Amino acid sequence: MAKVTMKDVAKRAGVSVATVSNVLNNIDNKSNEVTQKKVLKAVKELNYQMDMTARSLSMGKSNLLGIFLPEVFYLDRPSSVLKDNPFFSEIVSGIEYEARMQGYDVMITCVKSDTHVKDLVNKRMLDGVAILGMHDEEFWEGIKNIPVPIVLIDSYCYDKYGFCNVGTEDEQGAYLATKHLLTLNHTNIAFVTDNSHVSEVNYQRHQGYLRAIKESGLNEEQCPVIEADLNFKGGIMAGHKLLNSYAHITAAFVVADIMALGIIKLMNQIGKSIPKDLSIIGFDDLSVCEYSFPGLTTIRQDIYRKGIEVAKLLINKINGKDGNTGIILPVELILRETTIPLTD
Amino acid sequence: MAKVTMKDVAKRAGVSVATVSNVLNNIDNKSNEVTQKKVLKAVKELNYQMDMTARSLSMGKSNLLGIFLPEVFYLDRPSSVLKDNPFFSEIVSGIEYEARMQGYDVMITCVKSDTHVKDLVNKRMLDGVAILGMHDEEFWEGIKNIPVPIVLIDSYCYDKYGFCNVGTEDEQGAYLATKHLLTLNHTNIAFVTDNSHVSEVNYQRHQGYLRAIKESGLNEEQCPVIEADLNFKGGIMAGHKLLNSYAHITAAFVVADIMALGIIKLMNQIGKSIPKDLSIIGFDDLSVCEYSFPGLTTIRQDIYRKGIEVAKLLINKINGKDGNTGIILPVELILRETTIPLTD
Repeated sequence: MAKVTMKDVAKRAGVSVATVSNVLNNIDNKSNEVTQKKVLKAVKELNYQMDMTARSLSMGKSNLLGIFLPEVFYLDRPSSVLKDNPFFSEIVSGIEYEARMQGYDVMITCVKSDTHVKDLVNKRMLDGVAILGMHDEEFWEGIKNIPVPIVLIDSYCYDKYGFCNVGTEDEQGAYLATKHLLTLNHTNIAFVTDNSHVSEVNYQRHQGYLRAIKESGLNEEQCPVIEADLNFKGGIMAGHKLLNSYAHITAAFVVADIMALGIIKLMNQIGKSIPKDLSIIGFDDLSVCEYSFPGLTTIRQDIYRKGIEVAKLLINKINGKDGNTGIILPVELILRETTIPLTD
Repeated sequence: MAKVTMKDVAKRAGVSVATVSNVLNNIDNKSNEVTQKKVLKAVKELNYQMDMTARSLSMGKSNLLGIFLPEVFYLDRPSSVLKDNPFFSEIVSGIEYEARMQGYDVMITCVKSDTHVKDLVNKRMLDGVAILGMHDEEFWEGIKNIPVPIVLIDSYCYDKYGFCNVGTEDEQGAYLATKHLLTLNHTNIAFVTDNSHVSEVNYQRHQGYLRAIKESGLNEEQCPVIEADLNFKGGIMAGHKLLNSYAHITAAFVVADIMALGIIKLMNQIGKSIPKDLSIIGFDDLSVCEYSFPGLTTIRQDIYRKGIEVAKLLINKINGKDGNTGIILPVELILRETTIPLTD
């Protein structure tokens, strides 16, 4: 089927092309409400998508970027990742900073569908989009033809759809974390992860954990996987599971700091000692790791820098610069106070 | 001097009023670059301010709100409040949620001057603006004539400039916090606050603290004020000051949770016990208070709800609805584990 043009819309609505353009660009100060309705009806019936390139040429760049966060629900009520997970505020902070330095503004919104994304790109004439969080196949399929650069964060399928990505050495980070526990003579090491089963990031971290376990000659069946919600409360739940069902475990690698903080809190509350009763290492190095006591030993990914790299990559692509479409940032072991050698 | 109109600009640039309008509304697909430059030069020379009301009438509403955070510096490098203080991400989260529910998008940026704010309101045709953080007189004077509604957060001077405000019972909250410590028989109670000396919020919290102290018949000279940076590291500094210079102090009211968390961390690190060696109460009830051990007793202001109220008020004003211009949200004492009765 041929691409629907503005001309088709004009014909269907029985108005001029100029009128359609005015209505759609929201600069309609002449035509009346009836005309507007006619145009919008025709747009809907024909499923017309405005040509962003053409619009960009006539309208100039918007210098506006979209940061799209996942819309999540907690206990059936809409929740906010920006409020509940510091990872998101740190990365948004980095994107906003670098965008501003390069003369771009950012709009931020939680999105629930590919249609929502497409509407916003069109309505706001966004020059580019950064998408955080996980979405399903339908979502990615739905937005793959958006004619502006899209940068994902921590995606393992970005190239399938022609997007860009800024990620982290997930497998290697998990390997380093597990290796650190092994070096401290721990052999009963749990892997604590989220229960959503859709995160490629946590799959990769599991792979890194398994690589270290296997390398050391341990039997991976000895090493339990403990699952819970990927938030602070989930960490507390995981802690309960550890205590109730895995008494032989002496150390744990937790895929996200926010969950590790929950485990630490639980242990403190019931009078167990971290690291004496359990050595624990996280992943992320959130600012809040510093606030906990003991300070959380973790695998650092520089989340703020990740945000900066996202903005840089996005703006480069907007300006037609070539270069990487996939950037992987390095990780680093940060030793604080939650791991000690196993003693008999 | 009469107000400069678009007609004046057109005359000076030697073009038609329609051309000026097209250039300024960024819908100029006919005139060439030379014409554009002529228009923009005339705008600058005449200091022309586009009439937002007129533009709004012709262009329709933008349904875009601005959330403006303060640009701060730490060790001479630009820092980010969104990253360093969870208060900001929680409130932004609430604003974004309510705005989205009412069909508005939000853009977020750190601003450094009143000119920056004015430029963005014009360039992005913002329907309204929420401004967080403290700014100087010049800043407020500079933006007071912006012809869209402006809502401040925690301002004590909003009505002076004709703005709206969503605040918290600061004085009453501080009174409740101090009263709680007094009820536990503490008489040597420090007031820990920020060292910027420009925060009316913390002035009000000091007033509430003093009211409780005086009411109980204590001599306020017995009650030291300890100042440090308003962040986690500042809390650690304040903790050092407490330990080194105020050995008789048994309890502290800290104006912000983020500082209280720093004090708790220090005490834990040097082997002192909270609450046995020091009872401590904060203000805010940040999500991170839960992560600390012991859990921080604090005065709760519902920051997420505050964000929601900010968006509601802003959108009401945009829609010309009357009602309050100043909303004060209630506070509540949240008992956790950092305060205990003084024993001899």
